Amino acid sequence: MTLLANLMSTIFERRYVGAARGEWSGLAMEDLADRLLGSRGEGSGLAIAGQILDRYARMDEAERTAFFTMLTTRLDIDPDTVRAALDAYEAAPGRDSYAAYMAAAEPRRQEFIRQLNRVQGATGRLVAMRADLRRLARDHPQIAALDLDFRHLFASWFNRGFLVLLPISWESPAHVLEKIIAYEAVHAIDSWDDLRRRVQPADRRCFAFFHPAMPDEPLIFVQVALTRGIPGSVDALLAEGRAQIAGDQADTAVFYSITNCQAGLAGISFGNSLIKQVVRDLSAELPQLRTFVTLSPIPGLMAWLKEDAARARAAAADPEALRRLAALYLTEAKDNTGAPRDPVARFHLGNGALVHAIHAGADSSEAGLARSGGAMVNYLYDLTRIPQNCEAFADSHQIAASAQIKTLARAAHKTEIQGT
Amino acid sequence: MTLLANLMSTIFERRYVGAARGEWSGLAMEDLADRLLGSRGEGSGLAIAGQILDRYARMDEAERTAFFTMLTTRLDIDPDTVRAALDAYEAAPGRDSYAAYMAAAEPRRQEFIRQLNRVQGATGRLVAMRADLRRLARDHPQIAALDLDFRHLFASWFNRGFLVLLPISWESPAHVLEKIIAYEAVHAIDSWDDLRRRVQPADRRCFAFFHPAMPDEPLIFVQVALTRGIPGSVDALLAEGRAQIAGDQADTAVFYSITNCQAGLAGISFGNSLIKQVVRDLSAELPQLRTFVTLSPIPGLMAWLKEDAARARAAAADPEALRRLAALYLTEAKDNTGAPRDPVARFHLGNGALVHAIHAGADSSEAGLARSGGAMVNYLYDLTRIPQNCEAFADSHQIAASAQIKTLARAAHKTEIQGT
Amino acid sequence: MTLLANLMSTIFERRYVGAARGEWSGLAMEDLADRLLGSRGEGSGLAIAGQILDRYARMDEAERTAFFTMLTTRLDIDPDTVRAALDAYEAAPGRDSYAAYMAAAEPRRQEFIRQLNRVQGATGRLVAMRADLRRLARDHPQIAALDLDFRHLFASWFNRGFLVLLPISWESPAHVLEKIIAYEAVHAIDSWDDLRRRVQPADRRCFAFFHPAMPDEPLIFVQVALTRGIPGSVDALLAEGRAQIAGDQADTAVFYSITNCQAGLAGISFGNSLIKQVVRDLSAELPQLRTFVTLSPIPGLMAWLKEDAARARAAAADPEALRRLAALYLTEAKDNTGAPRDPVARFHLGNGALVHAIHAGADSSEAGLARSGGAMVNYLYDLTRIPQNCEAFADSHQIAASAQIKTLARAAHKTEIQGT
Amino acid sequence: MTLLANLMSTIFERRYVGAARGEWSGLAMEDLADRLLGSRGEGSGLAIAGQILDRYARMDEAERTAFFTMLTTRLDIDPDTVRAALDAYEAAPGRDSYAAYMAAAEPRRQEFIRQLNRVQGATGRLVAMRADLRRLARDHPQIAALDLDFRHLFASWFNRGFLVLLPISWESPAHVLEKIIAYEAVHAIDSWDDLRRRVQPADRRCFAFFHPAMPDEPLIFVQVALTRGIPGSVDALLAEGRAQIAGDQADTAVFYSITNCQAGLAGISFGNSLIKQVVRDLSAELPQLRTFVTLSPIPGLMAWLKEDAARARAAAADPEALRRLAALYLTEAKDNTGAPRDPVARFHLGNGALVHAIHAGADSSEAGLARSGGAMVNYLYDLTRIPQNCEAFADSHQIAASAQIKTLARAAHKTEIQGT
Repeated sequence: MTLLANLMSTIFERRYVGAARGEWSGLAMEDLADRLLGSRGEGSGLAIAGQILDRYARMDEAERTAFFTMLTTRLDIDPDTVRAALDAYEAAPGRDSYAAYMAAAEPRRQEFIRQLNRVQGATGRLVAMRADLRRLARDHPQIAALDLDFRHLFASWFNRGFLVLLPISWESPAHVLEKIIAYEAVHAIDSWDDLRRRVQPADRRCFAFFHPAMPDEPLIFVQVALTRGIPGSVDALLAEGRAQIAGDQADTAVFYSITNCQAGLAGISFGNSLIKQVVRDLSAELPQLRTFVTLSPIPGLMAWLKEDAARARAAAADPEALRRLAALYLTEAKDNTGAPRDPVARFHLGNGALVHAIHAGADSSEAGLARSGGAMVNYLYDLTRIPQNCEAFADSHQIAASAQIKTLARAAHKTEIQGT
Repeated sequence: MTLLANLMSTIFERRYVGAARGEWSGLAMEDLADRLLGSRGEGSGLAIAGQILDRYARMDEAERTAFFTMLTTRLDIDPDTVRAALDAYEAAPGRDSYAAYMAAAEPRRQEFIRQLNRVQGATGRLVAMRADLRRLARDHPQIAALDLDFRHLFASWFNRGFLVLLPISWESPAHVLEKIIAYEAVHAIDSWDDLRRRVQPADRRCFAFFHPAMPDEPLIFVQVALTRGIPGSVDALLAEGRAQIAGDQADTAVFYSITNCQAGLAGISFGNSLIKQVVRDLSAELPQLRTFVTLSPIPGLMAWLKEDAARARAAAADPEALRRLAALYLTEAKDNTGAPRDPVARFHLGNGALVHAIHAGADSSEAGLARSGGAMVNYLYDLTRIPQNCEAFADSHQIAASAQIKTLARAAHKTEIQGT
Repeated sequence: MTLLANLMSTIFERRYVGAARGEWSGLAMEDLADRLLGSRGEGSGLAIAGQILDRYARMDEAERTAFFTMLTTRLDIDPDTVRAALDAYEAAPGRDSYAAYMAAAEPRRQEFIRQLNRVQGATGRLVAMRADLRRLARDHPQIAALDLDFRHLFASWFNRGFLVLLPISWESPAHVLEKIIAYEAVHAIDSWDDLRRRVQPADRRCFAFFHPAMPDEPLIFVQVALTRGIPGSVDALLAEGRAQIAGDQADTAVFYSITNCQAGLAGISFGNSLIKQVVRDLSAELPQLRTFVTLSPIPGLMAWLKEDAARARAAAADPEALRRLAALYLTEAKDNTGAPRDPVARFHLGNGALVHAIHAGADSSEAGLARSGGAMVNYLYDLTRIPQNCEAFADSHQIAASAQIKTLARAAHKTEIQGT
Repeated sequence: MTLLANLMSTIFERRYVGAARGEWSGLAMEDLADRLLGSRGEGSGLAIAGQILDRYARMDEAERTAFFTMLTTRLDIDPDTVRAALDAYEAAPGRDSYAAYMAAAEPRRQEFIRQLNRVQGATGRLVAMRADLRRLARDHPQIAALDLDFRHLFASWFNRGFLVLLPISWESPAHVLEKIIAYEAVHAIDSWDDLRRRVQPADRRCFAFFHPAMPDEPLIFVQVALTRGIPGSVDALLAEGRAQIAGDQADTAVFYSITNCQAGLAGISFGNSLIKQVVRDLSAELPQLRTFVTLSPIPGLMAWLKEDAARARAAAADPEALRRLAALYLTEAKDNTGAPRDPVARFHLGNGALVHAIHAGADSSEAGLARSGGAMVNYLYDLTRIPQNCEAFADSHQIAASAQIKTLARAAHKTEIQGT
């Protein structure tokens, strides 16, 4: 009956806000924004918010840039007002002075975005709006600050406590599955049959976070293979004719692809929660699972190797050399903050995993060869060590690694010194 | 299988965070707060947050007051830091300077609350926490400012776009229905049979807003009677043996009770949205409905009448005088901001309704006699006039009223003058 | 939107079948039955069926008896037709001769009932119709045969494969819970608070079978207590202030009440399936459960004791004598088919349980004292012995019992002999 | 948690029925059948039934034929027993004599099938079993009678009152959608994109009947196009780039494909109910719909034309002649029972529709050209005339047709006579 409900509510809208819409059509966006922020009657507030979202949808890139510029500048804080309110609060802290300070310290554009979000279905449109903003901000630095307001609000709205973890299977709705096909970033899904191979077999799982206000849009998803032992090659995992096992015969869960779906949610981290929750749910469902491990790309390896011609040659010539150098790269190559240079390493080590094993010839896809010479890495989520690893990494970027990896890295050092 | 899942995740928790919990047990709440805000590994962050919520649950009133005081003072803004960041942002507005300003301008206690909310099921506990805070703040003004931080965050979390309207019926879960019984504030529900009379008949409806993170807790609910014509007495509406009609025989929907359920959500307004949404849904379901009207108490009437002995006498002596004076009260008695003095009038007029009719002898309950001498009022939601009413009220507290009400108020004036 | 859908479909019905209804209103039930069985256009078939069900609903007892008599006699088989078809099939067995035989051998009233069941919501009405029939048949033996047709069809419609087992909890819909209150036959539930004590605590469970065509009507339900050890008294189980335990602390599941809800489904056995399925589901949810046992009334005990004055005196004088005699009764008192005389014993022993223990002073309710002098019995479902017990009971009514019970029964024998 | 539940119940099964399974493995199917029919303990009954289904699944065609032959002959009625019971019932009709008659008159294989159906998930397997049976019966007439037993039971199990109508959309589960692709018989769906064009646009609908015991298997589905006016060509309806309209802009619902999915449900008619229910649901959702019409193939047209060389030539030469002859065929070509020769015409006319219009060049698919020279027909469901049409057709195969069709048929007659 959804359609009828829509129909009736359309009629209702026409009777109810249609006249007002006509009246607003001549107003500039600035005036609409003022009316939205001034509106005390919710009825018209909602209608104005809807009007703004609809107008935005029809804007071209230049108009959108102008719109974002208007929000950044016209709805910014007023420094003098903030100062005055701050002084008053400092002089006499209390509920009233704090209220005045809060009102002054937050730019009006945050309230503007909150008001837009009151419209049914607005959350997804605002996420898309931020994706536009971030793209446009590359060429228009004057609107870059606005991105922080979106991020600040989204961090509240997409709080972990509001997310719902759902399994994705061959019984999931087709309109969600087609998004999994479209978004998958790590190992591309090239058809519905390929998708079926990822989600239908008893030894394959997929989980995604959803937000109740965007029920048709996965936010992030992870693909899991249930295996006996830790696999060293994604080629084998995804092979068409591979042997399948029953879920309760597996001892290992392999996270072989994690994909963020929404460019508009950049900077809102879901990956750590997702892995933790999936480990928890799989543990409950399959108590015999002993090992939780990733099979991950090493996206920065080739770039790092190429910075040193001798290394690049060595790695190209010998798979074992490639493994040693990859171990060195993952454990010792740092960015200018002292964190691991490799982004995937940064993510899993920050979550408390450790570098467990490196495999050459593990990803023969074009992308895999280009980014890591075909090498892949297992990060191990050892439940007994996650908290300590987490904290050691958070405190001092200390990198947890298996004995095998340490040996490989030491061997690489030695070779390098001998090679010199 | 929920229980098993709980069981397994309990085991998981023990393996995973048990050790850490032991370590934290000796820490003061200040230290836990610092660790929570400093925590970069989500795993331990979640565990610390859970630990804080559990400790809070076991605190007595004095400990809770101390906890809130700590949050208000120790996690407040630092005025000098705000000033410096503000100066820098004013001097060179841009993404980085704005990020620094945002970080300084928001007190750390807001991030503290957001971190607590990451825990599964925390939202409801935080709403209850704010209810405690508001109660304690009456005697401890130093923690009153903290209430604004909760309200600020809740306004985002309970944004209209995230709420779900659900019908409440005799087919609803018992644990939700018992909350309806417990919360109903306007016309008390005294048993399961009384509840059944409110929600089971074909000419009775009840709707509530829910938040996805608190699925067992109604936030606000409204009770509706479907009638032929506008009723003038709640006694008749709730009478046990009354004649029932089919939903499609009604021409009028009467909102005879609206109840906010969560003291911890004070200041987050849901009532307007609720009425609008219910009007919309009922219109779609029962297209023959023509009139949407309330049957409301006049809570401030007796107090106002008693301010003037002559009025009080007149109202007590003659139902018609009571009606005239009620009309005068609703249309002319103002508070010091110029808004209507009666809180229910303020709510419905602010939503765009108009004062439609007044009935004497309409509510013979003890509460009804004490607050309004048994009089009740209909506020009419005339879909064609809501936007204008809304705006006129928002601009200048202009009160929309029917011709009948205006005549009654004029007659009251005349009588008063003559009476003088 | 259900109501609107109903409304529209009502309009549709009026346009579509209204005229026909008028036309049928003058017809006798015999004629309607003929038209229903002759109808080849489904449209009018459905409408006629609805008309018959509606008429039935308005009939008084005498009219219903007449209606059932008409079905039994007018829509019976025609022996000569059956004989001819049977001869033809015997002479030349094949698809066509078998089709003719089937058509002749089944009375037309079965097809009549099947046709009624096509109407939306008819299944529940037919179940109620059979309850009427069974009541009326006591005084009108000429309609008793018709009950077998209903039972035959219901055995197909309520096939185990079509039933759905659902947990009943404090989160179940109120309109289902009120049926649990109304139907509970073994230990009466006297209020909503009493119900809550049966379904809300973590160590209490309730499960019911539902049929998809009667989703609001439980068919049979069982109440379960999770305990440590096997309890000997239902008084203690149902005591108001009793100590509760968590589900995962229990080692025993006690089935302390099994209630058939639908008089119209007499003779269609659900209890065995229900117990098996609940044992299975509880085993999966709470793997630490070791013992599945009932705490059952002994409904025929007092009547049996009273057949022998000495026994009755002995049982009344001494709890231990009561236990011994109860053991004797359960293991040796037989009905004229050789099955146990006690109906509850017959049920559980037939399911493969064994008589495990007998408790005096276990049920102090009025009903409990009247039927069994306050004694109760545990039947034990020992998963490793169920199949053998089942078969031995099915083959020769062999009764499985614990050593304790056997000892008690032997002691009773001895006493009786000595007593003689 | 399904998997865990499965796991646990597997363990349970092993403990519980494993031993028995071993014991049965040496038994012949005859013996298993005897045990199943003799079994009084449900526990072992269920296990034996599961064993039989599992064995059947592994049988080859010859073994299945032998299995069906055994059921047909060994579990047939015993004519002498039937005769004796019949005589007794005729002599003294009553509950007991009728019970004995019922037991004798129904072959034991029906109870055998009912017992199999007690197993979880058995219904779908039995439907598939009947599909096998019907295929094998073509070459093995001795098992053809058994098909009638299946049909008899399925008619009860798949009673209209037990079916659920569900919309099929792009939001439906993929494993159901892939069955829609596989089953579609009228206008083949050649890819997921093609499917999306059938179910996602606002002016396309699809509905299917499901049975609660086979929730993953559609039984029958219909595809609907919402249009302005009655379309004359399926090519246009399915064209890739066609203009779409909103659902509430349509005045006509076109049923352009109806597909039975389950060969094992042959002879259980769902189509009529499906169309009626869809008309009802669409009327409720889109009250502005005025016309309900099919766009149907004319599968027997070419075969009929070819029976007369002159007709075939005329039809091939001139689209108008094709239309005239199609009108003649649909209204006058009869089978040997006097019903319309065309099966699709028979179906829709039997439902109360009328032949409304004929279009040449309407279906240019290979199948469309082969069966009807590209012609298609609209059958109109005129709500005000359905009951009369139904009855006139049921009584005397009277065919309802529009004036246009009658004119065309008359013109065909004239031409034929002139042509002679």
